[in-house]
Amino acid sequence: MNAIEYAEAHRKDFLDELKDFLRIQSISTADGNPAEIQRCADWVANQLRSIGLTSVQILPTQGHPIVYGTWMGAPGAPTILIYGHYDVQPVDPLSEWTTGPFDPTERDGKLYARGATDDKGQVFTQIKAVDSIMKTNGGKLPVNVKFLIEGEEEVASEHLEAWIAEHKELLTADACVISDSSLLAIDRPLITYSVRGLTYMEVEVWGPKGDLHSGSYGGTVHNPLQGLCEIIAALHNPDGSVAVPGFYDKVPAMTPAERAALAKVPMTEEEWRTETGAPKSWGEPSFTLRERIGARPTLEVNGIIGGFTAKGSKTVLPAKAMAKVSCRLVGNQDPYEIEKLVRERVKQLTPDDVTSEVRGLNYAYPATVPIDDPAMDAAIIAYERGFGAKPVFLAEGGTLPIVVTLRNLFKMPVVLMGFGLHDDNTHAPNEKITLECFYRGINTAIAMFEEVSKIPVH
Amino acid sequence: MNAIEYAEAHRKDFLDELKDFLRIQSISTADGNPAEIQRCADWVANQLRSIGLTSVQILPTQGHPIVYGTWMGAPGAPTILIYGHYDVQPVDPLSEWTTGPFDPTERDGKLYARGATDDKGQVFTQIKAVDSIMKTNGGKLPVNVKFLIEGEEEVASEHLEAWIAEHKELLTADACVISDSSLLAIDRPLITYSVRGLTYMEVEVWGPKGDLHSGSYGGTVHNPLQGLCEIIAALHNPDGSVAVPGFYDKVPAMTPAERAALAKVPMTEEEWRTETGAPKSWGEPSFTLRERIGARPTLEVNGIIGGFTAKGSKTVLPAKAMAKVSCRLVGNQDPYEIEKLVRERVKQLTPDDVTSEVRGLNYAYPATVPIDDPAMDAAIIAYERGFGAKPVFLAEGGTLPIVVTLRNLFKMPVVLMGFGLHDDNTHAPNEKITLECFYRGINTAIAMFEEVSKIPVH
Repeated sequence: MNAIEYAEAHRKDFLDELKDFLRIQSISTADGNPAEIQRCADWVANQLRSIGLTSVQILPTQGHPIVYGTWMGAPGAPTILIYGHYDVQPVDPLSEWTTGPFDPTERDGKLYARGATDDKGQVFTQIKAVDSIMKTNGGKLPVNVKFLIEGEEEVASEHLEAWIAEHKELLTADACVISDSSLLAIDRPLITYSVRGLTYMEVEVWGPKGDLHSGSYGGTVHNPLQGLCEIIAALHNPDGSVAVPGFYDKVPAMTPAERAALAKVPMTEEEWRTETGAPKSWGEPSFTLRERIGARPTLEVNGIIGGFTAKGSKTVLPAKAMAKVSCRLVGNQDPYEIEKLVRERVKQLTPDDVTSEVRGLNYAYPATVPIDDPAMDAAIIAYERGFGAKPVFLAEGGTLPIVVTLRNLFKMPVVLMGFGLHDDNTHAPNEKITLECFYRGINTAIAMFEEVSKIPVH
Repeated sequence: MNAIEYAEAHRKDFLDELKDFLRIQSISTADGNPAEIQRCADWVANQLRSIGLTSVQILPTQGHPIVYGTWMGAPGAPTILIYGHYDVQPVDPLSEWTTGPFDPTERDGKLYARGATDDKGQVFTQIKAVDSIMKTNGGKLPVNVKFLIEGEEEVASEHLEAWIAEHKELLTADACVISDSSLLAIDRPLITYSVRGLTYMEVEVWGPKGDLHSGSYGGTVHNPLQGLCEIIAALHNPDGSVAVPGFYDKVPAMTPAERAALAKVPMTEEEWRTETGAPKSWGEPSFTLRERIGARPTLEVNGIIGGFTAKGSKTVLPAKAMAKVSCRLVGNQDPYEIEKLVRERVKQLTPDDVTSEVRGLNYAYPATVPIDDPAMDAAIIAYERGFGAKPVFLAEGGTLPIVVTLRNLFKMPVVLMGFGLHDDNTHAPNEKITLECFYRGINTAIAMFEEVSKIPVH
């Protein structure tokens, strides 16, 4: 029995283990429970020990701990670094979940739970790939492996970079494989060659010292909520471009080759409409939908709160209002510089009868990986073996700071080998992973270890 | 001994009786005790009987009962309707009360208790005025009186309008006097001649069928929160006027007399700044602060919610966003028509890549009582006799539905003859009434009955 046959014979066992993993409420934001984070780190460490890694540790950071494990029993063979994360997003609005976010439930060939695809289900394919090879290969792998599974990816990997800088020797490898992204469709695998950066901010506007009665003062106070709306509304031009001076200065023009590669995976207006459910697309008219998502920078308002928002009527004139605003970055945009530009623009837009503040919360640089690397070639074959189709290459809209850190520090190729689907409800209620994706993902990961083992080490 | 001399000789008795009234825990909200409401209605009914009213009843409504009593022994003389309420606000936060909210306590010439000023202490001045006249005038009054003292004012008089519609004959009168408002200062009595109306709405904007990941779709979706901000920002003109076509159509120009009356009670920029704590006033530049608050209509956003608003970062592109928006109305503005105008404007402002809805929640008509009514003249003299000063006239920014109901149904003048002070902590911990206000209030109410008796009945 080879590794893939072993994996296919143990699908039910692997799925049951994944469900255990998903039951742990490892929310990493401030409203999460640190005890569950610790419990999840313990669970992952035990998994890595149980599949045969020889050195497994739970390593502290300034924030949530990192689970680190290695098997280095193939001297002369390449070393693969597997990165993933065991933390998950918050679950609100809880009322919109069909079944509990931490009660993994199968429906129609899909497994629903918070973290099902982002990233527990995906990182688990790598763990079970190693497990399947070990079990069918006399406890040996054809490559050396290092697992780094962190607990702060959903809070922008706040402390990871500092930790890596102090533990560089733990991460040296010939290539990194990350399963934390999506296929184009179940029969159209996809390798992400570019990820966007991020600047996440809070914009607060305030006026009166406390909430006022709108009957007693309405008409004389510049309502901070209205002031905030005026500012937010002025951060975009009517054509959908970002109205922040200097915002596009470090965005390179797209090359004809890049536009051609992305044109191979067009997103039609109809597909877009089906996926989003929104009536009509929006955004910069001179770029295709695919280009707007991955190759262009954006500014989004992620949340606003202020005043009375419960059921019923309360005639309050609120003292303050707050918006969460984030920018997705590409090319040479610097997340700290972008914060400064947004701060200057908000200051310029703030009328003199209210006060505003911009607070930076999270920062990530954008990154691009060359597509002509041998590790990329190995991934193309691995996907063909696991999914029966050659992958296309795509510029991803999301942020993966680890890619940037690994490329900057180690210059290693980073292969974003995702097994999710675009309708997985990542970060939203009813997150799921399609079981077929999970199983094919394990097979692909097995194939990847085998293919990478053929790459000569310099 | 005349009535005022009698009242002054019985101050201690009246105060003791008021304390009994204040000991009853007649909270009318859902967290109140219905038995205490009933006990309070009984207490008021007994008071009205004891002072000599000839017909006193406790009348049921769909909610808490109304205490109704009359003395109609002055045929040919005017009939005065006295409106007040025996219910009180909840008391939390209890820990902030210096002495118990239902343990009336004198300190520094003030009486502290829940309801001391709103409205038990104030309505009791009217009861003791009738008492004092009866006692010194052979059991007779110079006018006919009807008392309507309800138990649901603090829950928006939910069932009063329906009850009045079915009991119109009980309320016919030549004028109504309501003591449930404030003086400008202890030596500056105040008559409120105008109350604003209200249209309270929710504006919802939505786009995608569910929350999206801003990394996966940002740049291609018109963010509903941004759409909402664009709409809200466009509901005002840069000069602070409301940018809703037709909004001002039924707002009469202020008369020189009205502007002159309000100019007698100016609110300076400095006073405004001290009261609000905001850096600089805002609003229609061609109206004074006092005019903007009371005599002009407004549109305020009372709350906004959408997306992720907890601590930390979540890169969500929210599916929907909601604002609470309310308009304060004056003159002949119709709250239902205003809802329609706002709905049309929001529709006009909604881009075709999102969807919006305006839902009406609450409606109240504005009302103005002509300053030149004989009942107003009587009140001016009454205040001069009771407080030693002529009252000023003020347009109130808030809403008082009872005034509107009485004016619409009966066309009677409604005199808002308040005896409270602005620092009485109405609806807050440590509510109080200044004893001097209470005593002067009784004298003023006595004088009002005497002055109104001189008005010829048509």
